[in-house]
Amino acid sequence: MRVLGVDPGLNTTGYGVLDFARGQVRLVEAGVVRGRTKGSLTARVQEIYDGVAEVMTTLKPEALALEKLYSHYDRPTTAILMGHARGVIVLAAAQAGVEVHDYAATQVKKTLTGNGRAPKGQMQLAVQRELRLAKLPEPPDVADALAIALCHAWTQRVGC
Amino acid sequence: MRVLGVDPGLNTTGYGVLDFARGQVRLVEAGVVRGRTKGSLTARVQEIYDGVAEVMTTLKPEALALEKLYSHYDRPTTAILMGHARGVIVLAAAQAGVEVHDYAATQVKKTLTGNGRAPKGQMQLAVQRELRLAKLPEPPDVADALAIALCHAWTQRVGC
Repeated sequence: MRVLGVDPGLNTTGYGVLDFARGQVRLVEAGVVRGRTKGSLTARVQEIYDGVAEVMTTLKPEALALEKLYSHYDRPTTAILMGHARGVIVLAAAQAGVEVHDYAATQVKKTLTGNGRAPKGQMQLAVQRELRLAKLPEPPDVADALAIALCHAWTQRVGC
Repeated sequence: MRVLGVDPGLNTTGYGVLDFARGQVRLVEAGVVRGRTKGSLTARVQEIYDGVAEVMTTLKPEALALEKLYSHYDRPTTAILMGHARGVIVLAAAQAGVEVHDYAATQVKKTLTGNGRAPKGQMQLAVQRELRLAKLPEPPDVADALAIALCHAWTQRVGC
């Protein structure tokens, strides 16, 4: 089963595609979709949509895993901007017929490290170890996207 | 010039299309796009996108007017859900090549009634009078959408 994990953000949206089969996991592709930080909100939203839709068209994941809504947000502004990015990402999934699953940030952290409050560095290390990567996944948005995909697979017992 | 005003919401998204020419305004169409309140967030986002995209394809507005971000929101949940709806609406505009303009809620109210804190009933009356409607525009989401379109036209001196 092929799973796409996405960490939405208007500046940098991290994504990671993993294949799960016979108890093994394989990294297919990971990277970031960047919104033009100097562009209008409209242009940025369109770039995120285009980037994520292209990943779906090219790599054909069967499931999309995202962080749950209603996490902590420092400010309403952050929450509403995050909502714009998340809205067009789930739209791309719906249009591509890709199932959408979401997980609380604490669940993702706990599943990967045993600690629901693990800091970013610990999450990057856990993802590196699990996928046997030569280097830490960078930027952290990519590690978060891969962590969400791993959390989905382990929670749903995908490819076991 | 044809202007589409939209009042985004995940349950009910109001829209109104107005033509401005030679100092006159004409109501082309107004209504609501409903997200299935019992559907998943993904399904609701897709319905809003499809509904607004269809209005754009059918009625071919030249500009989209929306309420500005960063208004007051009671809760981060409301803000992020609003962000999902707004995100797919501005995406639909970008894809259709429709300019996006936004106005603060207080500016819309002040432009229509002279009072930046006008209550919903006063806004509905102002829209009814301006468009010479036989009845109050209902639900209030439609009145808000028409008010934003009027605010855009008057602020930009469209069709004068």
